Parts: sequence; structure tokens; C-alpha cells
Amino acid sequence: MKVLVLGAGQLARMMALAGAPLGISVRAYDVRSHSVVHPVTLADYQQDLASGIADCDVITAEFEHIPNDILIESQASGKFLPGERAIRVGGDRRLEKQLLDQVFVANAKYKVLASKADLQQATVDIGLPLVLKSALEGYDGKGQWRLKSADEIDAVWAEIEVFLGDSSPNQAMVAEEWVPFDREVSVIGVRNKNGDVNVYPITQNHHENGVLSFSFAPAASSELQQQAVDAFSKIADELDYVGVLAIEFFDVQGSLLVNELAPRVHNSGHWTQQGADVCQFENHLRAVCDLPLGSTELVRPTGMINILGCDHIDSNAHALAGVHLHWYGKDKRPGRKMGHINVAGLDSTSMFKQLQALQPLLPEHDFPGLANAIKAVTH
Amino acid sequence: MKVLVLGAGQLARMMALAGAPLGISVRAYDVRSHSVVHPVTLADYQQDLASGIADCDVITAEFEHIPNDILIESQASGKFLPGERAIRVGGDRRLEKQLLDQVFVANAKYKVLASKADLQQATVDIGLPLVLKSALEGYDGKGQWRLKSADEIDAVWAEIEVFLGDSSPNQAMVAEEWVPFDREVSVIGVRNKNGDVNVYPITQNHHENGVLSFSFAPAASSELQQQAVDAFSKIADELDYVGVLAIEFFDVQGSLLVNELAPRVHNSGHWTQQGADVCQFENHLRAVCDLPLGSTELVRPTGMINILGCDHIDSNAHALAGVHLHWYGKDKRPGRKMGHINVAGLDSTSMFKQLQALQPLLPEHDFPGLANAIKAVTH
Repeated sequence: MKVLVLGAGQLARMMALAGAPLGISVRAYDVRSHSVVHPVTLADYQQDLASGIADCDVITAEFEHIPNDILIESQASGKFLPGERAIRVGGDRRLEKQLLDQVFVANAKYKVLASKADLQQATVDIGLPLVLKSALEGYDGKGQWRLKSADEIDAVWAEIEVFLGDSSPNQAMVAEEWVPFDREVSVIGVRNKNGDVNVYPITQNHHENGVLSFSFAPAASSELQQQAVDAFSKIADELDYVGVLAIEFFDVQGSLLVNELAPRVHNSGHWTQQGADVCQFENHLRAVCDLPLGSTELVRPTGMINILGCDHIDSNAHALAGVHLHWYGKDKRPGRKMGHINVAGLDSTSMFKQLQALQPLLPEHDFPGLANAIKAVTH
Repeated sequence: MKVLVLGAGQLARMMALAGAPLGISVRAYDVRSHSVVHPVTLADYQQDLASGIADCDVITAEFEHIPNDILIESQASGKFLPGERAIRVGGDRRLEKQLLDQVFVANAKYKVLASKADLQQATVDIGLPLVLKSALEGYDGKGQWRLKSADEIDAVWAEIEVFLGDSSPNQAMVAEEWVPFDREVSVIGVRNKNGDVNVYPITQNHHENGVLSFSFAPAASSELQQQAVDAFSKIADELDYVGVLAIEFFDVQGSLLVNELAPRVHNSGHWTQQGADVCQFENHLRAVCDLPLGSTELVRPTGMINILGCDHIDSNAHALAGVHLHWYGKDKRPGRKMGHINVAGLDSTSMFKQLQALQPLLPEHDFPGLANAIKAVTH
């Protein structure tokens, strides 16, 4: 089987590495350079999108903010999974919130804002504080504001008007209830064409400056896992979803509220490479290639640490049992996702012990907040 | 780091897949086509051996029967690990037996044969039956005879003379004591430049027509494991070995006798991809790239089934938890190693249960003897 991934970043790369043993060959369409490349070697296949599409059996995506013309051309081929609708829903907060309401999956109260008056009304209807999110390109915490009191409306709206002026005409703002969550968790699951669903154990996530910094799994009771599975099934069934879908939740005193969806493999699922029988990358390929889904059962409790804007890790990290580095082969840029470190243990206690052993090798300068995040979950 | 592998088969391919997450880029020198290729995509880098060597940080090998000029050129670069001596020892049964005697590691009695008279003398000195093995290219059971009685000497020696006539001038025959072994096992270990050694749990191996068909691990008591570790350390230390080294043993009533060495990653270590913390391919790269060795600890008991001369497996195999297919991307030829299937379980009982569940999907025609081999070890 030949799979073309829209997007040529680390997710396509890890799909290629996971697909090779299955005899699945993965190419990637770089939407910026308009070239079809090998996502590991970056060899250029000298194809345009049309030839790349003609040459593959299945098209999928590693991100949801796909330019409209590419999305339409991919969908028109009849080869695109999870397909245009799922990608649009994942890429537009208005559609995402509509979908969640439609399938009765709990999420924060919200209002789409067309004007400053709408924002004023939202402070009345929803209350304060409010979180203001752009409908498009909300990826990794960009385009977000927090409104704490009504007297900030003018100042915040002025900033938003500048942001909207720089955005596509289809951009909009969504005001959301600020949720006093206890923690952020996510669930990664996979669904195939028959409607079979396999879901990985819930992952607990820690963000630093709006970007995921640290995750670990398993991180929930069976009761909470069931809530996540229910939400996953409702959403994935409604979309007739094929592939891996990630759902981020707020855990509010044991009730899960959906924060957002990602119609793709997800950073908070990278732990599955060491921790699950079949990792998220392989399971996504299995689903889109119509192979039986792989088991999502836990093999080893595993934590994941993102490597951001840094291209060197103390090589002593390699000496720790259960510690696995995953580099993405990218040139260093501030804040860029350069790789991740999976830390697995035979049980949760030994995983946390290895995280504590690893942490001193990761300087605060390159891993801000990590020491505290690990301390918080290992106490 | 850039690693050039001599040989462009499945072992180089699996090294490339294991190396990518570590930021190690693997190229392969195909000794038949004299080209440097990517071992997964087979993209041709348009380099000869000299440019391939100039362009890499480390040279290693996926097989021991390397043409002499290539071996000498690689060694001369100062980049070759485990190096010329280890490769020559692994590729020549005379040197291998000498080494084993030199470091006092138990192995079958033997005699190098220069003539029919030597063979007659061997039947006296060693006894009957004898196993006659070619010193060079003994890979996968080729160039072997068994001598059961003295009246077969003329007929067998006649065949051997034909074989020697077709071989290189450096070819020779070694007569060995026939060992009444209970089972065949192997141990895969890794050693680095500092002399640190990590050894995987002993693997039990089943051959069919002289080719490995089925392995599983763990397969030994701690006492037997210690014998294997001792043998490994003596051999690897004497060679000042750097990389993964495989040792095949006969288990004779709880005593291990070395059968042969392979100075490389080995088919009987493929189970480590699912079953060990760090697989043999990654550990070989870590050693030759001078990174700390990875843990060889068991994560899950795992069995491995070779796929020989067959390019399709019933896709229901994918539906079994713990079952992982590894295809090599090769064109089908009779008897060719096309891929392997790893079968992992949370414990040995569940591994054997999954092997029993998988076996009916693997027809006797393509997997001769497998049903019996699995039955024998699961009873």
C-alpha cells in the first residue's frame, strides 16, 4: 500500500517509520514547497499534488489546517481518509463546537463572536472569565486571549481586530466559558471503516506556554476511561471517522469536558510508541489502509517529554532503562518541536522513578516547568 | 551520525528504521551492485564505496561473508566496527573454532581437513557420526554433510571435492563431532568501546531444512543464562568487540556448547523489536556510534516466525493482540527471507496462546514444520 500524507513534518515521519514493517510506503506532500517527499529522508519525488495523488492508494493528513484547494483536490480523489469533513471540523472551532453539541458530548459553553457587542453579550450569557479563541489555526495556543473583567473588553477587542485583520476572511472568534479544570487529559482512539473502535488509555497532559510539554499514561480510573470512550465513539461515529482521532478534555472533578479535537495522530499519543501494543502511527495506517485495527492495550506505563527548540540531549539519558529518544531530523528553531523522549517503566512507580532520574539531565532552560510538572505528578 | 552498512538486506533496513529516531542516518553498500542505497527506500545515492566511506562516520556490516577487497578498504578507513578480525572470525569456521579454544569456551571437537586421509583420521580421533562443514559461507545450512559410517567416506569426500573445486582457493572443510543436543539456543549481546556488555535473554531456536523458522524468548534458567553471558563476555572481550554479536549454542543437558558466531545482528534476535526495552538493531547502532548501550531487559515474552518465500499473510493475523508483522520489502523468491512475525504476550503463557491462535492462519505449505514446532514448545 502507498499512503500520501498531507504535511511533511514529524507525524508523517513517524507514520513512515511505523508503516515500513507493514509494507506500507509513506510519502508526504509538503504544503509549503508543494513537493512530494519521503518524510524520513526528505528525498524529493519530483511530483506535484496531482501526481502524488494519482500514485497513492490512500491520502491522509498530519494536520488540520490544510489549504482549501489541497483539501478539495484530495477529497475529489475519493482516496482521502478521514476525509474533508473531519479535517474541516478539526480545523474550525465553530464546526467543532457544533458537532459536540449535536452528539451531546459535554463541552464548555460558547458563543461565536461577530462583533464587540457579541463579546459584551457573552460576558453576560456565559459569565467571566472568558477564554477567546480564534476559530481557525488555534494550534498550540496561538490566537488566544483571556478576558477576566468587563473593563478589559475594549483593549482585548482592539487586539482581536488586529488579529482578525491579519487573518483569512473566514476567521472568527469564539468566546468560551473558562473551565476551572483539575487537569488536562486526552484520549487517542482509532476507528475503521466497519465502525470498530479501539481506544488507548487516557493520557494526562501538561502544557507550558500553551504547548504540550509532558504527558503520561495511564492516567485515569476505568470510570473516567469509559467517559472518554463514550465521547470518542459518539464523535467518531457521527463523522464516520476512519483513522486516529485525538480528543483533549478538561477533567473537572471527575467529569470530562471536551476541549478540542484533532483529526489525526497527536503529540499526546507519542507515548504509545513504547507503551502500547500497537502505536498510534501504525494504528492510523492500519485504519486508513483497511487492515484490522491493532490492540491499544497498555504494555508499559509511559511518559513523554517534548523537546522544544533544542537539538542536544545529554547522552547519559540513553543509559537509563526505558528512556527512548525520538528525534525528528529538523533544523533547530526557537520553540520548534525537535523530538520527544519516551520514558517507560514496568509499572507506574518505575516509570515515575525513571522520569525523576532523567529530569536532572534536562536543563530548566530547555525544559521550562518540567521539573515542577514531574514533581507534581510523582508526589 | 551517519552509518554505512556493508550489505543492503533486511538487517540494514531494520537498522535504518531503528536508527532514525536516534538521529542516526543509515546508508547501505550493496556488495553485488556496488552502489550505496537507502536500505528502506532503496534510493541510490550515486556513490561508490570510497565516497560512501568518506561520507560516513562509522562503517558496520550486516553479514560476515564480505568480499576481501571491500573488507580491507573498510578496515583501512579506521571507521569499521566490529572490524575486520571479528568479521573474518565469523566468516571462517577455522578461525572461529581456534578462537573458541583460545578463550576456553566449550564447543564441539573438530579437525580441519586437508585430504580424505584427514577425514579418515577424524573418524578415529573424534568418532562417528561427524558433521562436515565448509569453513567459509556456511550460512543457513549450505555446504554441510553428515557422515554416519566409515563406508560413506569415499562417496562423501567425492561430493566435497566437487564442492571445494567450485569454491574459492581459501575454502576448506572442518569435521566436527556430532553433538546430541536437546535443543538449539542463542544469545544476542552487545558490547561497546568501554567494554560494557549487555546480553538479551536466551532464545530457543527451531530450524527447518537448515534455516531458522521459529524462535522465542525467554527460554532458559538463570543458570543457563549465566553460562551464555560468560561465553559472550570471553569471546567479545578477546575480539575487543564493538556492536551486537550473536552466539548459537547447543544445549546438551543443561550445558551450552557454542555452535557458531555471527558478528552482527541476528535473525534469532528479531524478537527484541517487540520483546526488549531496546532492540538489537538500536543497540548495535548505539555501540558502533559510541552511545550508552540500551537495556536488554525483557519487556514481553516474544516469539518470532520467519516468513520464507511467501509475500502474503492472512490479514486476520493483524487482528491478534501482540502480533506484529515485519516485511522486508523484497521481491518473492523460493526460500527467500521475506519478513518475520513477532508474537508478544504479557507473560509466556499468553505469548504461547497467541502463537497457537496465529498458527492456523499460516499454512503448512508456506510454514513447513511450524505447527509441530509450536506444538512442541507449548505442550
